[in-house]
Amino acid sequence: MNILKSRCKIRKFSFLIQTRNLALKRFPNYSILTDKDYRKNRCLDDVNSLDSYNEDWLKSCKGNSKLVLLPKTTLELSEILKYCYAKNLAICPQGGNTGLVGGSVPVFDEIIISTRLMNQIIKLDEESSILSCQSGCILQNLDDYVSQRSLIMPLDLGAKGSCHIGGNVSTNAGGLRLLRYGSLKGNVLGLEVVLSNGEILNSMNVPLRKDNTGFDTKQIFIGSEGQLGFISGVSILCPPRPRAANLILVACNGKSFQNVIQIFKTAKLELNEILSAFEFMDRESMRAVKENSNLENPFSIEVSEKCDFYCLVETHSSDEESALRKIENFYSKLSEKDLGLDCIVAENKTQFSYIWSLRERIAESLTKDGHNYKYDISLPLNKMYDLVIDIRKRFSENDAKNYFRRCIGYGHLGDSNLHLNVTSEKYDEKIFKLLEPFLYEWTMKNNGSISAEHGLGLKKKNYIYYSKTKENVEYMRKLKKLFDPKLLLNPYKTLPDF
Amino acid sequence: MNILKSRCKIRKFSFLIQTRNLALKRFPNYSILTDKDYRKNRCLDDVNSLDSYNEDWLKSCKGNSKLVLLPKTTLELSEILKYCYAKNLAICPQGGNTGLVGGSVPVFDEIIISTRLMNQIIKLDEESSILSCQSGCILQNLDDYVSQRSLIMPLDLGAKGSCHIGGNVSTNAGGLRLLRYGSLKGNVLGLEVVLSNGEILNSMNVPLRKDNTGFDTKQIFIGSEGQLGFISGVSILCPPRPRAANLILVACNGKSFQNVIQIFKTAKLELNEILSAFEFMDRESMRAVKENSNLENPFSIEVSEKCDFYCLVETHSSDEESALRKIENFYSKLSEKDLGLDCIVAENKTQFSYIWSLRERIAESLTKDGHNYKYDISLPLNKMYDLVIDIRKRFSENDAKNYFRRCIGYGHLGDSNLHLNVTSEKYDEKIFKLLEPFLYEWTMKNNGSISAEHGLGLKKKNYIYYSKTKENVEYMRKLKKLFDPKLLLNPYKTLPDF
Repeated sequence: MNILKSRCKIRKFSFLIQTRNLALKRFPNYSILTDKDYRKNRCLDDVNSLDSYNEDWLKSCKGNSKLVLLPKTTLELSEILKYCYAKNLAICPQGGNTGLVGGSVPVFDEIIISTRLMNQIIKLDEESSILSCQSGCILQNLDDYVSQRSLIMPLDLGAKGSCHIGGNVSTNAGGLRLLRYGSLKGNVLGLEVVLSNGEILNSMNVPLRKDNTGFDTKQIFIGSEGQLGFISGVSILCPPRPRAANLILVACNGKSFQNVIQIFKTAKLELNEILSAFEFMDRESMRAVKENSNLENPFSIEVSEKCDFYCLVETHSSDEESALRKIENFYSKLSEKDLGLDCIVAENKTQFSYIWSLRERIAESLTKDGHNYKYDISLPLNKMYDLVIDIRKRFSENDAKNYFRRCIGYGHLGDSNLHLNVTSEKYDEKIFKLLEPFLYEWTMKNNGSISAEHGLGLKKKNYIYYSKTKENVEYMRKLKKLFDPKLLLNPYKTLPDF
Repeated sequence: MNILKSRCKIRKFSFLIQTRNLALKRFPNYSILTDKDYRKNRCLDDVNSLDSYNEDWLKSCKGNSKLVLLPKTTLELSEILKYCYAKNLAICPQGGNTGLVGGSVPVFDEIIISTRLMNQIIKLDEESSILSCQSGCILQNLDDYVSQRSLIMPLDLGAKGSCHIGGNVSTNAGGLRLLRYGSLKGNVLGLEVVLSNGEILNSMNVPLRKDNTGFDTKQIFIGSEGQLGFISGVSILCPPRPRAANLILVACNGKSFQNVIQIFKTAKLELNEILSAFEFMDRESMRAVKENSNLENPFSIEVSEKCDFYCLVETHSSDEESALRKIENFYSKLSEKDLGLDCIVAENKTQFSYIWSLRERIAESLTKDGHNYKYDISLPLNKMYDLVIDIRKRFSENDAKNYFRRCIGYGHLGDSNLHLNVTSEKYDEKIFKLLEPFLYEWTMKNNGSISAEHGLGLKKKNYIYYSKTKENVEYMRKLKKLFDPKLLLNPYKTLPDF
């Protein structure tokens, strides 16, 4: 095998700028992999099969790892990590590789350890509704499995068909139904984590909702992006599967985002405990899925021409009859307050999926525009859309009309989470400079978070101070050193360069 | 002021044995407080006013602190901690002092820092339903406050009238409605923590549901019993206050606990998203509140003579009509399956409170028996009551009938959390030796947790290995050292002696 000391290739992304400026360098103290380091047993080392592991889903980051390892058990994983620890070999843990911030692909030649073959369900305790499984299980498969016991996975996201539960936990994935079922910090009840030295920290032996025996160390691994340990197993609480799921698409009245907020407040009041998702998308988002994915706007031309915002409101309920009554109340409150132009209630599974696809396929549609500048921002609700308006204003004031294709806002309104996306045919520094640092400063000024759910990874690590204090970052570094003293796990990411 | 190098007095508790065996000693490296160390500004140092701070609610542990400090602001608290850090003075953080494991009172002469005057509400963000407040706010006061905005605190427990939210978070309090609203790990969205050296770690600046910018360090403070930092502020998500709350007391049919489990399963199916609490109490618990607190069993004599178990089933709903229909379905399912002897639905607020008091006042009632041996165990549901049966069997096999007064089981069945309590006129080593370590070994064998919600504190710290692995405890020690390098915060507790 020809081992090359290779540089990271980062394509087409705004991040390009950053690497150039910071001159990201391979940590010189890491060892270089040699043939002696492994036997050909569940290893991938030929260039073709490595490609999909080295590059992220957005094709925005590409590393140059020469080896992917595919352990099946925690003990195998532990042996691998022990070896790497002894030999000072850096590691990139990888799940379904569906991350959006370059956190799941190597930067240089880190060995990729994939959870792909750690895909066994360990147990579903039907009395406590706690599922225990290996970290490489695909979210969709888990949901199919628990559905047979009338349960549902407490998280759902666009990438469910390929993302791994271990990756979900490592990145504290939020998704579409956090509003209803809460975050992974509440739903993950146990973890098995292999530390960089091969030690195993296990809190999965006790499949319990309550355990107050000492510090809850597992929590620190949730959302730490593979920096502190490698998650090998997960125990997670699964709520009862709703007997009735309903979906309403509202074409909002009026130009003001305040109306959208009023619709949300009405939904909270009228749908209350059965509200399971509240998403919004703007006119430009609806146009993107039409133009790039051939998904027709289901409203009449008259309505769609007038409509600036759409809300997608989902309910999960144990009882269809009372759900429908609540939905009716919700609808009549919207009419009373003149908040909706029109409303579609999905009448069958096909309509249900179609309406969801309008929202779920936005991200995919945008990739067809060319280059994507993706932002994932938490903001106080009443400020949420102002950022999109201000960015558009900034573009127009700076004559950027000819440079960008779209500037859109959509996202999880119920969680105050805005996905702001700008597209252009190819990466353009002018656009980038109009966006950053303006957008981060704007977010900080308005008490927002510069990464609501996507994490920091490689691309956003150096923006951390817009949302975290110096003291917090300092303790992140101390925690990193405590759990991974040789800094071998997922290097160059999450923690800022300075 | 006469400063005495004093020994901890621990009265009447099983723990007595433990201290004797382990010869608990004051850490010799801690400094002794002198008059020079403080000015009389929000200090308590006369013996009478110190008493209630030095002794716990159960009157089972008593320390000998000579000084209580009552800061009002985070900066004052930070100044105090900085001073103590420089002078090597040990500290006992204290909230409402309602803990049950001796975690909130000093062991020797630690300075008590009480959150009593840190009782300001900072903000209730009505759009996001996030409440931010100082850590000394009393839970009941917070609930009253948010109720004016049609919100509810996501936790509720018997001690709500005196416990502080900071103490709730430090001990990861569970309580009566965890089943519905989830744990503090999901509901606490931000914390302000003062570390032992006076540094402030703040994640409250961003009142957001989602923030994935780096490690979520605040999580490690939830449930760490004041070992890692002093919680000074809390941001917490408040769910919508239910418009209709209903309460059903079921007198269960049959001798077997399996029937109780069947009732729970029926409740989960029929009441589903509106189920807010599922508690159980056995015949002896009902007898205790009658004998010691004059609370009459609301069922007929005929029913109560036959009944071994009672279930208290609460619903929280936005819509009374459909709630009542669901309750009716629940009731008819119980009849169909012959699971209930009788059923009472609270018809007004007085009945609602009365029925809850039957459950909530068990702990208080038991103190009137004399000495209490209290256990707070998580167990798989189908094993949950077997422990009570086995303990009774053990007592009868060992002719302990004359020694103990009661051996009862009650608790949060919906969370698999058993409160097993034994009482005797005064502390009796024979009873203690029948209980321990048998009960802990039994719990471990059945994959339970030896402390579901009460924590470890002083009393249970050395039993940690029954529920946590050696590796986990080792990393607890490392975390302790990282955040509190001089081991000044809440010493002698939570972490085991060896």
